Amino acid sequence: MSDSRHGHGHPDAPTPSDLVEDEDYRLAVVDLLGVLAYTELVAFERLAADASLAPTISDEAALALMATAEIRHFTRLAERLAELGADPSAAMEPFVGPIGEFHAKTAPGDWLESLVKAYVGDGIATDFYREIAGQVDPETRALVLEVCSDTGHANFAVATVRAAIDADPRIGGRLALWGRRLVGEAMSQAQHVAGERDGLASLVVGGVDRPGMGLAELGAMFHRLTEAHTRRMQTLGLQA
Amino acid sequence: MSDSRHGHGHPDAPTPSDLVEDEDYRLAVVDLLGVLAYTELVAFERLAADASLAPTISDEAALALMATAEIRHFTRLAERLAELGADPSAAMEPFVGPIGEFHAKTAPGDWLESLVKAYVGDGIATDFYREIAGQVDPETRALVLEVCSDTGHANFAVATVRAAIDADPRIGGRLALWGRRLVGEAMSQAQHVAGERDGLASLVVGGVDRPGMGLAELGAMFHRLTEAHTRRMQTLGLQA
Repeated sequence: MSDSRHGHGHPDAPTPSDLVEDEDYRLAVVDLLGVLAYTELVAFERLAADASLAPTISDEAALALMATAEIRHFTRLAERLAELGADPSAAMEPFVGPIGEFHAKTAPGDWLESLVKAYVGDGIATDFYREIAGQVDPETRALVLEVCSDTGHANFAVATVRAAIDADPRIGGRLALWGRRLVGEAMSQAQHVAGERDGLASLVVGGVDRPGMGLAELGAMFHRLTEAHTRRMQTLGLQA
Repeated sequence: MSDSRHGHGHPDAPTPSDLVEDEDYRLAVVDLLGVLAYTELVAFERLAADASLAPTISDEAALALMATAEIRHFTRLAERLAELGADPSAAMEPFVGPIGEFHAKTAPGDWLESLVKAYVGDGIATDFYREIAGQVDPETRALVLEVCSDTGHANFAVATVRAAIDADPRIGGRLALWGRRLVGEAMSQAQHVAGERDGLASLVVGGVDRPGMGLAELGAMFHRLTEAHTRRMQTLGLQA
């Protein structure tokens, strides 16, 4: 996602001073950093646990080391939440249910499923967070883009999944279904969160005195997310 | 444990030059660092996964951060193995079976069992590795003592388990049984490893031209390990 648009942000995006002056905006940013922080914390736990599924010790060690990148991101987000006067645990709390449910419904059955989940699931999540980053103040945006940076996991997953499909093409059909299921569950939980958290939703669609994405922009965003997802599936050698 | 004896080592312990000159000794050290490295790697995976059992988000985050200390230790050991001309994965390979079996047989059923396992299980393992550290060259000893240093996990486990037993004393009986089962499984796997890995065993009991612990010393070592285990169980408020 080298789209430089995300690095500059929406022309009408809030300024850092809005964080102090506009309480609704501050709460929306706390929601954003809270959901991101809990996403990273759980991603860390899952990646670390999934390392034990690796077929070789060197793969296992590589996965474990990648997991530690997620916990560094988590720490950065928790620190920023505290700077904004928020209790990090309280900020994460509203997202424990939906994120927990997503993972409970998408527990990988094996090593390859765990890699596809890490690549495809993390990919669509970080794309979505990067889109939101275009709507917030520069300081928040820089932090979101930083924690959404790739941890090296992607290349590892792609190489391993492709090799497995080359060795046995039937694996591709099963993993393609798995990829679709992941996106379906992610969408379902994202809708749930958007319905429950007005502040977070307002970052995307705008607030009373803050511009957001119009309907056309929203449509364009979903188009970009879908295209990027399809590209990732193709990169793995899978049909989206 | 703070016994300063371990910081000085056995008077007849090997010198660093033995690592180069004595191939048997080098292989024994590779075994020692290999079993330690795999211990740390799996401890990391388990701690990170067990974090999801935590009853509160702040406990969950605290556990996840402690897990990352284990992966730093793992990295240090893997680097040292490479310096000694060993392939880290190959050095860990012989211990995948026993360590995996230990964890499969002692999967915690809940949050408190996971904390007791981390405190009591890690405690007896690191005490044992510290005892072996007294038998090896100063450089290896320093590394073993470093990776066996406490990661902050102990205080956390003690406070949480004690509070749970205070709130409901019946929990103490169940956790005391659990502690005994952990030690039994650990001993069983340690015996298995000692029987299979002559090099590792020779670090403790000595080799052809290298002194080791005599029978009296071995007995004293087991006495120290048992005493320390009993103290840990008491610290948790449990009968050993």
